[in-house]
Amino acid sequence: MSKLDALRGKLESLGVDLYLEVYLPNIRYLTGFSGSNAFLFVGDSLSLFVSDSRYEEQSKGEVRDAEIFIYSTDVFECKERLPKKRLRLGIPEEHITCSFYKRLQEKLEDFEIVLVSDPVKEFRIRKDEDEIEKIKGAQSITDRIFTEILDIVEPGMTELDLAAEIEYRMKKFGAEKPSFETIVASGPHSALPHAKPRDVVIENETVLLMDFGNYYRGYASDMTRTVWVGKNPDREFVKIYDTVRRAQEKAEKEARPGMTGEEIDRIARDVIEGAGYGRYFGHSLGHGVGIEVHELPRISKTGKDPVLPGTVFTVEPGIYIPGFGGVRIEDLVVMTDHGVEILTESPKNLIKI
Amino acid sequence: MSKLDALRGKLESLGVDLYLEVYLPNIRYLTGFSGSNAFLFVGDSLSLFVSDSRYEEQSKGEVRDAEIFIYSTDVFECKERLPKKRLRLGIPEEHITCSFYKRLQEKLEDFEIVLVSDPVKEFRIRKDEDEIEKIKGAQSITDRIFTEILDIVEPGMTELDLAAEIEYRMKKFGAEKPSFETIVASGPHSALPHAKPRDVVIENETVLLMDFGNYYRGYASDMTRTVWVGKNPDREFVKIYDTVRRAQEKAEKEARPGMTGEEIDRIARDVIEGAGYGRYFGHSLGHGVGIEVHELPRISKTGKDPVLPGTVFTVEPGIYIPGFGGVRIEDLVVMTDHGVEILTESPKNLIKI
Repeated sequence: MSKLDALRGKLESLGVDLYLEVYLPNIRYLTGFSGSNAFLFVGDSLSLFVSDSRYEEQSKGEVRDAEIFIYSTDVFECKERLPKKRLRLGIPEEHITCSFYKRLQEKLEDFEIVLVSDPVKEFRIRKDEDEIEKIKGAQSITDRIFTEILDIVEPGMTELDLAAEIEYRMKKFGAEKPSFETIVASGPHSALPHAKPRDVVIENETVLLMDFGNYYRGYASDMTRTVWVGKNPDREFVKIYDTVRRAQEKAEKEARPGMTGEEIDRIARDVIEGAGYGRYFGHSLGHGVGIEVHELPRISKTGKDPVLPGTVFTVEPGIYIPGFGGVRIEDLVVMTDHGVEILTESPKNLIKI
Repeated sequence: MSKLDALRGKLESLGVDLYLEVYLPNIRYLTGFSGSNAFLFVGDSLSLFVSDSRYEEQSKGEVRDAEIFIYSTDVFECKERLPKKRLRLGIPEEHITCSFYKRLQEKLEDFEIVLVSDPVKEFRIRKDEDEIEKIKGAQSITDRIFTEILDIVEPGMTELDLAAEIEYRMKKFGAEKPSFETIVASGPHSALPHAKPRDVVIENETVLLMDFGNYYRGYASDMTRTVWVGKNPDREFVKIYDTVRRAQEKAEKEARPGMTGEEIDRIARDVIEGAGYGRYFGHSLGHGVGIEVHELPRISKTGKDPVLPGTVFTVEPGIYIPGFGGVRIEDLVVMTDHGVEILTESPKNLIKI
């Protein structure tokens, strides 16, 4: 069944005859289109992809399973291709602005506009083989970068320099771009889970946390490794590192299909709490990864849905001691029928450089 | 007058007592906050900045002229700080999703929610001295990159390699990130105004178009240069290059404060049409640049407002011959009391490399 057919099968339960998709990651998922302006109408006997003249050639090459309509000045020129009878048209309330909603009501005055909750984000959770191959491709670039970076890092370079070296290799190795802003954080700064790289020198004998990922053929990767710069890791650091690593590996080993995100999160959290660091692990264990680097499911205390085979997600526990530093270890994994397959190939032993 | 006071002075004409800003570029403009989650309430005697605990420290360091409220789980915890009486609350219809609008109506049930058109985008057009300094800083990084890149380009490297070399230098030279996806397009591919860099070798004796920019302290730059790779530029290419350059320089020379965007666009378009290439120049002459790389004003056929001193915008005519190639030359300029000051320092003579 095509992805569009799966959506088509859901229209009745949404209480609509037609659905208008405007969210570009969903449009990429449903049709393969990678440009920056598109609309997609889906009905029982309709699949109408709409874009502007900049994307005429590109959409012919990319768009699967839908008729293409190119407008010259106004997207609503496509109205001529829509059914003439009064229909209920569903639109995703999370992705439609109030001003576009008003325009829809004016321009498609024959339709009854119905706000629905994005029905596509749920479909996107479980990946097919082709999607998993793309994610593996993205992660293999990330792993290759990490290998090279280990040879480059040295005390005296700045966090910004190192971030530049990481991102430089993304395009060089065939990735499209970073999947989020690369994190390079050394010393006490590593205690901030979302640290931005600074124009600050990486010292000798200090912790260094690197969290990065890239897009490859439209799919994201995401990985974190924490290393020690120097020969003599601080004793507290070694203890924290060991705790995070045990938590991370236990969650990967014991996760099973059908467990909820909350249950998987709990495996790692129990290890960290058991070691007395519970209050220093404030974020979720992980999140889904695909066309977006943060997508469903939630692998956290609020993850109430079972994680089913085909789901790609991160496993990334961390311990962050304010003023001292932080450790996070993050793999990308895919749930299979038996447990998780780890897509990340970079080592997790404590690396000293 | 502070930027917040300017907005405050507009509330009455919007027909509201309070205004809720949710659009991050506007929040950055009004308060200086650079994070990824924030809300801002502005009233006659109220300036309330709202974010979550990740941004507690950062907002203390960045936010000007507003009280800071950090919520723990739900943004509407801030309700306790809002006036208790029934007020008209304006929200920007271009930036509010239908689902957030529904939540607002539920959570702020004592307020009358009024959809208004984004009132801040107009304020952002004319830059103050501090903003112009930041844009100059961004553009000077872009110029420095171009100088270095001229020494690196050679036939045999791929478009992707060259894009990687360009973006690598952004962070190295202190920029935050690209302000848009770097364009590197060689040969006939340069005829696509929004070409993506490909894993394709740059040939000898061919046209090479590079369009890139970066953020520096929150402000964007944007520049295009087209060069000839080889010693013997094609005669048609030379003629096109000369035409684009004359159009570009004439618009810069003759633009005056108070002219409309349409009038400035017309100066360059007349040169290109006069040379017989009118149908190959399909896009606008330029656009405003600031916190966003594309913002108001329009420097195009639809630019009906006068361009006043302090306005920063691009001047970027182009000629694109399908199957042959394209030339675009783009500077960043600021309108002054007498004409435009050119912020771009890279040369515009026909460079052969």
